[in-house]
Amino acid sequence: MGKLLRVNTQNKTFGFEQVPKAYAGLGGRALTSKMILDEVPATCHPLGKANKLIFAPGIMSGSPAADSGRLSAGAKSPLTGGIKESNAGGLVSQKLAKLGITALVLEDKPQTEGYSIIVINKDGVEILDAGHLAGKGNYEVMENLWQKYGKSVGVLSIGQAGEQCLKGASIQQADMNGRPGRAHGRGGLGAVMGAKRIKAIVVDDKGAGRLAIKDPDAFKAANKKWVDMLRKHPVTGQGLPALGTAVLVNVINEAGTLPTKNFRSGRFEHAQDISGEKMAQNIEQRGGITTEPCHPGCVIRCSNVYHDKKGKYLTSGFEYETIWAFGAHTTIRELDDIAMLDRMCDDFGLDTIEMGVAIGIAMEGGMIPWGDGKAAIDLLSKVGTAAPEGKIIGNGALFTGDALGVDRVPVVKKQAFPAYDPRACKGVGVTYATTPMGADHTAGYGVTANILGVGGTIDPLKKEGNVELSQGLQIATAAIDAAGLCLFVAFAVLDNEDGLPTIVEMINAQHGLSLTPDDVLELGKSILNNENEFNKKAGFTQADDQLPEMFNETFPPHNTKWDFSSEELSKTLSF
Amino acid sequence: MGKLLRVNTQNKTFGFEQVPKAYAGLGGRALTSKMILDEVPATCHPLGKANKLIFAPGIMSGSPAADSGRLSAGAKSPLTGGIKESNAGGLVSQKLAKLGITALVLEDKPQTEGYSIIVINKDGVEILDAGHLAGKGNYEVMENLWQKYGKSVGVLSIGQAGEQCLKGASIQQADMNGRPGRAHGRGGLGAVMGAKRIKAIVVDDKGAGRLAIKDPDAFKAANKKWVDMLRKHPVTGQGLPALGTAVLVNVINEAGTLPTKNFRSGRFEHAQDISGEKMAQNIEQRGGITTEPCHPGCVIRCSNVYHDKKGKYLTSGFEYETIWAFGAHTTIRELDDIAMLDRMCDDFGLDTIEMGVAIGIAMEGGMIPWGDGKAAIDLLSKVGTAAPEGKIIGNGALFTGDALGVDRVPVVKKQAFPAYDPRACKGVGVTYATTPMGADHTAGYGVTANILGVGGTIDPLKKEGNVELSQGLQIATAAIDAAGLCLFVAFAVLDNEDGLPTIVEMINAQHGLSLTPDDVLELGKSILNNENEFNKKAGFTQADDQLPEMFNETFPPHNTKWDFSSEELSKTLSF
Repeated sequence: MGKLLRVNTQNKTFGFEQVPKAYAGLGGRALTSKMILDEVPATCHPLGKANKLIFAPGIMSGSPAADSGRLSAGAKSPLTGGIKESNAGGLVSQKLAKLGITALVLEDKPQTEGYSIIVINKDGVEILDAGHLAGKGNYEVMENLWQKYGKSVGVLSIGQAGEQCLKGASIQQADMNGRPGRAHGRGGLGAVMGAKRIKAIVVDDKGAGRLAIKDPDAFKAANKKWVDMLRKHPVTGQGLPALGTAVLVNVINEAGTLPTKNFRSGRFEHAQDISGEKMAQNIEQRGGITTEPCHPGCVIRCSNVYHDKKGKYLTSGFEYETIWAFGAHTTIRELDDIAMLDRMCDDFGLDTIEMGVAIGIAMEGGMIPWGDGKAAIDLLSKVGTAAPEGKIIGNGALFTGDALGVDRVPVVKKQAFPAYDPRACKGVGVTYATTPMGADHTAGYGVTANILGVGGTIDPLKKEGNVELSQGLQIATAAIDAAGLCLFVAFAVLDNEDGLPTIVEMINAQHGLSLTPDDVLELGKSILNNENEFNKKAGFTQADDQLPEMFNETFPPHNTKWDFSSEELSKTLSF
Repeated sequence: MGKLLRVNTQNKTFGFEQVPKAYAGLGGRALTSKMILDEVPATCHPLGKANKLIFAPGIMSGSPAADSGRLSAGAKSPLTGGIKESNAGGLVSQKLAKLGITALVLEDKPQTEGYSIIVINKDGVEILDAGHLAGKGNYEVMENLWQKYGKSVGVLSIGQAGEQCLKGASIQQADMNGRPGRAHGRGGLGAVMGAKRIKAIVVDDKGAGRLAIKDPDAFKAANKKWVDMLRKHPVTGQGLPALGTAVLVNVINEAGTLPTKNFRSGRFEHAQDISGEKMAQNIEQRGGITTEPCHPGCVIRCSNVYHDKKGKYLTSGFEYETIWAFGAHTTIRELDDIAMLDRMCDDFGLDTIEMGVAIGIAMEGGMIPWGDGKAAIDLLSKVGTAAPEGKIIGNGALFTGDALGVDRVPVVKKQAFPAYDPRACKGVGVTYATTPMGADHTAGYGVTANILGVGGTIDPLKKEGNVELSQGLQIATAAIDAAGLCLFVAFAVLDNEDGLPTIVEMINAQHGLSLTPDDVLELGKSILNNENEFNKKAGFTQADDQLPEMFNETFPPHNTKWDFSSEELSKTLSF
């Protein structure tokens, strides 16, 4: 059984402790959410000393199970004011697990200036002065730390946005090339790390050995089935490896639910220019990599490396949501400008969804012209300089709307909408409204049955079946996030009745348990209940489970509206 | 019986209607809060078309009753997200009443650019293009409108802050000299007026005649008692007329509850430099006026006119809360700098409390140095230029704190604290926590029994009796705000058992009613219940009825902490 590692950021001390009974068997989102509910006062200031920033590998992380290397980060969110779990790939999750660390907990906050770096390896923990890395972007930080600690260590770091405690600040993870291509993006967790003045965390598992598996043969057999399942499904075996998540641009545009010009239409006339096909073509012509894993053991490989016109590295982990937010939402049609904006977000440490939506709101408020990629780059660059424009944009879409007096701002629980309009993809709309996370597609990706024909078919334009769809997906997603699995495994799992049982077989073999699929779904429910309990204590009510008024507008081309009552929505997470 | 005047700001149309039964007999805060509860969807965007901005004279306004000329402005607040009533003196309340207008209701919002001016007189209503007044400050607007419509018309107007829809934006009223010295300051109602693109409202009662009084003799007799009562009380008859509200600087500093340097101490070492005594000395030496009414018929006359060193007009309505916010809170000690900041707030149309606290937070966040009056003037001037710094400061204390990553921000329901520390003046602390308005001293001024020995004595440092004190004051205040009386009459009323009965005599004589004092207190309760019902629908919970964590810090010189539990506070408005 692993240990909790608690770091007091005020005293610069740390301690290991046995995982207490209340947290036994939990991992990933199940553990971060339970700990925040139990240990963080719900009405505290997110940047105050009472908040905690918790990193937890999934229950399966560190094992050889395919796609099990996701790390959960949790805290009270500076963006939403509610509970937050934001998970990402990278190298940290598997390494923490191999070091026997069930969770890393950052507590308290310093009263003095100056940043620290936490270095964790098999010999223990060091809390070092960040020195010249303070004030630097994530590219420089990660390059420096790989130079110093070896070119395979896991790194979590914040850029200028986190140091400024902006609500849009992410925590970036080093990808397999040591670049900040992976992000704990949503909810401003980088600001919590910044408030605690931790610039970076290095995790090195050298000498830690393999993770113990209780029943290696059973595990191996189940994992083989698992890999086959992922490789055979058209989405996880073909679509995502070929074009990355950007495969969705044309699909969602065709479906008429690609939010364009701040959610005024579901079709972007220049969708081709920012499509996955266009991206793949550029990569092929310029060099770069079309398919790459975000962590060792990933067989889906939806990540990529994108070069500029001169064939020089520009960005990596260039994804659909980013392309939509900076593209269709703002009507910017130059893919290279969007790639530059993505790179800047990775470097400053910013959530690309929140920033893209905020840039669109800045356009709505007349700060810069619609569709002007160069103006967007110039505006976003202010975050790196601590100029007041950066303080506005860097604090996200709602903050930018409030600064500019804009009343059409697509947020739920103050978090910006992702890349699917809730009026023409109602299953994901129900998720936006009801997930404890604030508007978040990953919390219950109704796009599956609404648009992609995965896990059945539910009409995206009608209400019928979409509350149930969102409910099922939110429960399953919470469990997947607890396992440390990549959410994209859900495509295969939803279309294969052996999916969930295979996951359970692997968990049982790894930990010597005898769980059933129902136990895992119960875990999913308990996570959601814990999260909603925290939010309730923090002051959330049904009034927070609604979409903004702008979604009462008729949405072309399908000319549908958002039409769920508060009562209908309230059934989603009642169990 | 009067009429409602509804103006559709989108179509530029208006209509009069009989006061419906549900609103019969209501006025001032009782009417604005009831109408907002009934007519405004609680979860709407405050700057959207569903919000309404309502102006209502008090039940006694327009009559000769001393100090009865206060106007209530109500809406869903852009600052707090809850219901808001903000009341002010000036000329409008009495004139609307004399024109038979029980409430003026601004509805909908324009989709196009350009501002309008509404002109109301005995012949009807005109909605005119604001022309060259758009973009101007309140000084120029009011001077222009007095030139055009006569030097005694009532004017409500917004400056650059309201046009930018900033959360700190006020609606200013012309004082008796046609200057913007009176403010509907709190809660950002100027932003609602700006969203509806109404630059100013002119109210001219020429030819309207006197307000009908049902029983003139009874009214006259009661009003004589009333005037005597106000003149004989040491606060309303001597303290306020002599030094204005700034008389409090030395009193509250001496009591050790003058919040200094963002609520770190209750004593400001330079309090003398910003005291009422110092102000009176300056006025005497430079010219200016030490005592002036804010509306005809005021016998307290706590307003003033303050000149600069050269004897030139600088500002008017220069009050204690303003001096504290820009002074002790920020540690600025130059009274002339504070007077300039006050003038800028009146001109741009900003709440001085919210701005003073925001400037202090900007100092806390390192944007400008502590105590630097010139830097504060420079920073506040940005609001007039629409520069991004102005968008930050102009949106208030919490917004500024969020922009700068500051976690010590004194707000409740997102509204900045006034000039009394809740740890050493616990009666007002209970009001800050529990009033539906957000931190607001005027909603239940516990300073009376806590510090001033008015209406009894309750220890300001202990919990005992302070919930009850706040409850009684909140009920009485709501009734006073409904009557259209100045809140300062409470000093006399609390110390005189004939106080409330005399008010009731006047109301009965004016309207031909036979109310009892209990009826008036029941009205107060019903107002608070309506307001809390709106807030509950808007998503407020007990978590919103708490002070921020910073008030757990020990507060010198009395070394007390804030120590009320949520349960104790919840009793305040339970009736």
